[in-house]
Amino acid sequence: MKIEAVDFFYLAMPEVTIEADGSQDALLVRVVAGEHVGWGECEASPLVSIAAFVCPMSHGVCRPVGASVLGQTLDEPADIERIAAKVEYDSMDLLQAPHTFSGVEMALWDLLGKVRSAPVWRLLGYERSHRKLPYASQLFGDTPAQTLTRARAAREERYRAVKFGWGPIGRVSVQADADHFAAAREGLGPEGILLVDVGQIWASDVEAAAARLPALEAAGVVWLEEPFETGALDAYGALAARSDKIKIAGGEAAHNFHMAQHLIDYGNVGYIQIDCGRIGGIGPAKRVADYAAERDVTFVNHTFTSHLALSASLQPYAGFATHEICEYPFSPKPVALAFTANHLERDANGYIAAPDAPGLGIEISPAGVRRYLVDVEIKVRDKRLFASSTL
Amino acid sequence: MKIEAVDFFYLAMPEVTIEADGSQDALLVRVVAGEHVGWGECEASPLVSIAAFVCPMSHGVCRPVGASVLGQTLDEPADIERIAAKVEYDSMDLLQAPHTFSGVEMALWDLLGKVRSAPVWRLLGYERSHRKLPYASQLFGDTPAQTLTRARAAREERYRAVKFGWGPIGRVSVQADADHFAAAREGLGPEGILLVDVGQIWASDVEAAAARLPALEAAGVVWLEEPFETGALDAYGALAARSDKIKIAGGEAAHNFHMAQHLIDYGNVGYIQIDCGRIGGIGPAKRVADYAAERDVTFVNHTFTSHLALSASLQPYAGFATHEICEYPFSPKPVALAFTANHLERDANGYIAAPDAPGLGIEISPAGVRRYLVDVEIKVRDKRLFASSTL
Repeated sequence: MKIEAVDFFYLAMPEVTIEADGSQDALLVRVVAGEHVGWGECEASPLVSIAAFVCPMSHGVCRPVGASVLGQTLDEPADIERIAAKVEYDSMDLLQAPHTFSGVEMALWDLLGKVRSAPVWRLLGYERSHRKLPYASQLFGDTPAQTLTRARAAREERYRAVKFGWGPIGRVSVQADADHFAAAREGLGPEGILLVDVGQIWASDVEAAAARLPALEAAGVVWLEEPFETGALDAYGALAARSDKIKIAGGEAAHNFHMAQHLIDYGNVGYIQIDCGRIGGIGPAKRVADYAAERDVTFVNHTFTSHLALSASLQPYAGFATHEICEYPFSPKPVALAFTANHLERDANGYIAAPDAPGLGIEISPAGVRRYLVDVEIKVRDKRLFASSTL
Repeated sequence: MKIEAVDFFYLAMPEVTIEADGSQDALLVRVVAGEHVGWGECEASPLVSIAAFVCPMSHGVCRPVGASVLGQTLDEPADIERIAAKVEYDSMDLLQAPHTFSGVEMALWDLLGKVRSAPVWRLLGYERSHRKLPYASQLFGDTPAQTLTRARAAREERYRAVKFGWGPIGRVSVQADADHFAAAREGLGPEGILLVDVGQIWASDVEAAAARLPALEAAGVVWLEEPFETGALDAYGALAARSDKIKIAGGEAAHNFHMAQHLIDYGNVGYIQIDCGRIGGIGPAKRVADYAAERDVTFVNHTFTSHLALSASLQPYAGFATHEICEYPFSPKPVALAFTANHLERDANGYIAAPDAPGLGIEISPAGVRRYLVDVEIKVRDKRLFASSTL
């Protein structure tokens, strides 16, 4: 087959706010080859990722992503790897390229899975898709009382694991943070798995982060996520050495395999969190999963958006039984739920799994896409390089 | 002062080819504050960098670069650092942001220097601008004979240092590469400084790179540049340990301080090459220069485009007398020369220096800008987010 067309659908809530909620918009990607169609999703900033697909070439290693994808042969998984290598080299100087290609790459896997009537995890070499325990990913409340209420609500909705993130942590005091951690534990109950995400709040300040370790330990927190900027590897490594009980988690910003590798090798993270919508898709995420498993580091997906992105993000570690925990969008914005026709619902025991269905196993809802579609037009030298299509 | 306006001018040759020549287009940035104007330049992919400035927000830490710049106070260098930190945090999930901000940041320094009638290097704390020895940066020929001719031509134009890059190196055989290195040395003469850039051709294959070390040593090459992908730190470190004579150079792709730091700490590069149009501007480049100097690593600019970018790229290490070598665009495309009214010409001894003039010391040529200006229009939801301005 030849890749004949790649179309982008920029979807967004009518109003996007400054909350740290990545489900407020989405960039859906459709790839067409022969009689087949595959779907993927880029994370984040739809307009910029579209521009990186259609932009004029700057020079030989700053070509638009589209130049490495359109017209290529797609018959087997090795073709996806070849196209990915071409994008990486020919778009070396185009910084946005990995985000753009991530959604395209997912769609290539989805399409190939449909052609072969096989789930993507099987194309990756796994024999089965092991169940994963979803954690409800939500934001800390403005007050400990709000955090308590949110933790209780998650527990009432049968979540056995909860991650609280961002909010006021690191912005007030060590004690204020401790009160939030304790409230989260109280609301979740003594058995629940409690995770904390602080969104790079301490940049590279190891002491500021270390000051929170006693309270995190007291609350029985399993991991502390993104205490620092992704590149502050020394700080990651130094903090990891400060506690036997709290593991450090990170990696969502990795936009290539190497960035994840560095967090494992030099940052000593215990959990490596990969967003398939950023790292270049499912292939490099699988490479990270293999690398992590060999080093007793646990792979976890990073997914805050749709169930298409969720299915894609489960594929790379579907076959690892002991890497059990997974991020699950707890209360995404309506747009993220509307554009897929089916969703990965939790079973009676609270688990989900990468679907045993062709490709990614997620159907698109044309009505949902139309409802949230944002019109985009990009013209260069009076030539229209992009105009939104409809479904 | 308040930052009132930021305008982008996308300039390009009428035809852009696949040669690895980054001077085929440019993204010129103008910042206006009070009665003052500053100029900078982003590298590369103008359309995508424009989109990252004007795009709609995706969420709280995926805001357009413009949201962190427009309306901000600019009175002193600390304001530039504050704005940079705001961009870094609020555009954390917008991958293209550092490339976009790089040109804006240069323009902020240029503007502040003009307000204070001081060169940027003085604002950075340097007492003088030390001379730098430009190397002529050019591509290997298709044949050793062509490489020989090019080396002779550079020598005839009084260049005492030449860098050859890309071309057929790594694509034919170890012997073919050796012939090119020898031809370059022959053309340059025994005294000339010879540098080799292979543009990541070996990805992370240490043995392929090491196989070229004897020929590089025989040709008296000072540095081997970018043997691997920027992230392949282990490979960089392993190759650095394989030769006492050949130092490894790299870093042009660094889009933040940490990436350069990793190449120094983990990759053991001997030369760290920073493009101010990518790393986030002059401030983070200065931070790299300081970090490198403390570790006996030599800072070098990476500049393949205009003399505006060249002046900006010299500022971060202008005060370091012993970091003497600098990249100099040897035969840029006409667009890169046309849009500045003055140029950094070599003196009688073949040296250049960051200008002793307010700001970056480079004047813009409105006629040159108009001649190469590319019309761009970006519309989202029928709202025009960007339309090219003229000068």
